[in-house]
Amino acid sequence: MVNVGIIGVGLVGSELINQLTAQISRRSLPLPLKIVALANSKVQLLSNTNYDAIDLDGWKKRLISHGVSTDLSAFTTYLAKSPDVAVVVDNTSNQDVVDFYPEFIKAGLHIVTPNKKAFSGDLGFYKKIVDLAREKKVLIYHESTVGAGLPVINTLKDLVGTGDEIVKIEGIFSGTLSYLFNSFSPTEETAGDTKTFSDIVRIAKENGYTEPDPRDDLNGVDVARKVVILGRLAGIDLSLDTLPVENMVPEPLRAVASADEFLTKLPDCDDHFDQLKKAAQNNNKVLRYVGAVDPVNGKSSVSLLSLSTSHPFASLKGSDNIIAFTTKRFPNPLIIQGAGAGAAVTAFGIFSDLIKIAERTSS
Amino acid sequence: MVNVGIIGVGLVGSELINQLTAQISRRSLPLPLKIVALANSKVQLLSNTNYDAIDLDGWKKRLISHGVSTDLSAFTTYLAKSPDVAVVVDNTSNQDVVDFYPEFIKAGLHIVTPNKKAFSGDLGFYKKIVDLAREKKVLIYHESTVGAGLPVINTLKDLVGTGDEIVKIEGIFSGTLSYLFNSFSPTEETAGDTKTFSDIVRIAKENGYTEPDPRDDLNGVDVARKVVILGRLAGIDLSLDTLPVENMVPEPLRAVASADEFLTKLPDCDDHFDQLKKAAQNNNKVLRYVGAVDPVNGKSSVSLLSLSTSHPFASLKGSDNIIAFTTKRFPNPLIIQGAGAGAAVTAFGIFSDLIKIAERTSS
Repeated sequence: MVNVGIIGVGLVGSELINQLTAQISRRSLPLPLKIVALANSKVQLLSNTNYDAIDLDGWKKRLISHGVSTDLSAFTTYLAKSPDVAVVVDNTSNQDVVDFYPEFIKAGLHIVTPNKKAFSGDLGFYKKIVDLAREKKVLIYHESTVGAGLPVINTLKDLVGTGDEIVKIEGIFSGTLSYLFNSFSPTEETAGDTKTFSDIVRIAKENGYTEPDPRDDLNGVDVARKVVILGRLAGIDLSLDTLPVENMVPEPLRAVASADEFLTKLPDCDDHFDQLKKAAQNNNKVLRYVGAVDPVNGKSSVSLLSLSTSHPFASLKGSDNIIAFTTKRFPNPLIIQGAGAGAAVTAFGIFSDLIKIAERTSS
Repeated sequence: MVNVGIIGVGLVGSELINQLTAQISRRSLPLPLKIVALANSKVQLLSNTNYDAIDLDGWKKRLISHGVSTDLSAFTTYLAKSPDVAVVVDNTSNQDVVDFYPEFIKAGLHIVTPNKKAFSGDLGFYKKIVDLAREKKVLIYHESTVGAGLPVINTLKDLVGTGDEIVKIEGIFSGTLSYLFNSFSPTEETAGDTKTFSDIVRIAKENGYTEPDPRDDLNGVDVARKVVILGRLAGIDLSLDTLPVENMVPEPLRAVASADEFLTKLPDCDDHFDQLKKAAQNNNKVLRYVGAVDPVNGKSSVSLLSLSTSHPFASLKGSDNIIAFTTKRFPNPLIIQGAGAGAAVTAFGIFSDLIKIAERTSS
């Protein structure tokens, strides 16, 4: 039996609870797991000293009515005293939860998370938690930090662990930017349907495909975090401070105060994006925003590239991600593609990691 | 520490030993593994009662000079007495090793294998070993049975284990047939380079890309085995006896005695294949040999299909495999592609499974 404590019960956390309860009610869980602690940024709910499963029927109301003020120290102590293996699931994107990881690990708690900050932030902190986890025999699984539930992190760990040589990792790592450029610069243009870049950004924002301020997608920082995560797993000490990242927010719009003002002024920059697109088109190419880990030449980067229409990244659909691993054993790359964003597939990756922890601690 | 006994030391087994020794000598093995037993169909070499690692420098000569007649009972008993976790790696494609799986499991030995026979053969036997393994808490990992080291089996287990609904699994599961049809029916024909089907088969055979008798590829049985394996993991009781499989060996050539005679007579059938190809071309399509698991409509099959040139399977390169999982969470499919045959990538899949067993038994 594995006791699970969940921090963060928004979209992804709620979906994870739904997926877990569905498998439990179908009696289809490969290995037994139960939720014994729930927390959001304000309140937390810990089960009793028998570590009975929290009744998940109506958990949202009970968290509010029975919860006490969130206190991650108390949350940690409670899970650490569990007679069974215990796992913390961090569904937030908050640095203050990440700051607590060393305490989780010291208490013997395994960690599963889609939160990119621990793995893409300060390099010293990253190495500290990796070393601490090894020392304490604690597992930290974070499949959903890159490509949501697509098997990206696991595949890279398998390649590295078995001694393959990573020649290059390239990918389209942002569902939002995938959507924006697949729409703006398609492989085959439909006559009469040529929207401007600002049109596409506005529509994407209206449909909830972007961050509240689309500049948080267009600045490339989210993609950079994913490149840093993969680079570190591939054995190179990448850092957000030094990785070259092409910021696609036009210079004059970076200092603009609000998202609304940004969207109002973005049409002024449509010519710029249109010229890039036309230049690509004239060479039978399309625009794609690509992250690359390059251990051989030390040229890891995040940038807007012009790719041939026959390139595997060119024909991507919708908001799919794609990741290509070129290695000594896979000179023709191993490619993984599919939905890389959204609550269902992110929760799927977290849930898969939880089952792996249960497997790896139950023999 | 995990003690490993290897059965089958041909191309794949030798490559696995090379990959393992390279990681050991680099001190880069994520978790400790050592080889304590080796066997081929004739002789076996067991280490001492301390279960010291076999010295792998010159193991081929030592297996011959110090080996005794292969006796899988003695092999099993030796590994079962290991004070540490022990794993049998079956690198053969032999039914007689598979017949021994129940003995391995009863002895508490974990199993890793690229051998498809246990998972695609008799359904009763398959269910028996799955149940026995659950009862004995023994792990059976077989990533390399489908798509070699591509993360196909693991991904499917994750999808099923977390409660996703499998709508369809489709793929090009044979490196040989991928190569034959990618060459014969490309998305863009190069003028003046239109080889006949029999030319392409002959060249593939000369380059060692086919089985000694190419009919063993063209009959579709190998692809059918992979479809059966995936179908059973997806929860449907497929069987080689009942799965509809399109045999691409022309009827008159099935009874021909030798591979040589088959190759000599194959040009008589070039018109047949050429007509199929031209009919596809006229509709802007290409020919691809596709295996499909179809839990929803019960129409699983293996067949030669005409696919649009924009289909993800159409633009496959060389001898790559491709697998597309369409599920409730991935309505736009999760796609994995890359080399699905060859010793290096097959051994990679086996090695990854070994590391997972080490992880899952060492906490």
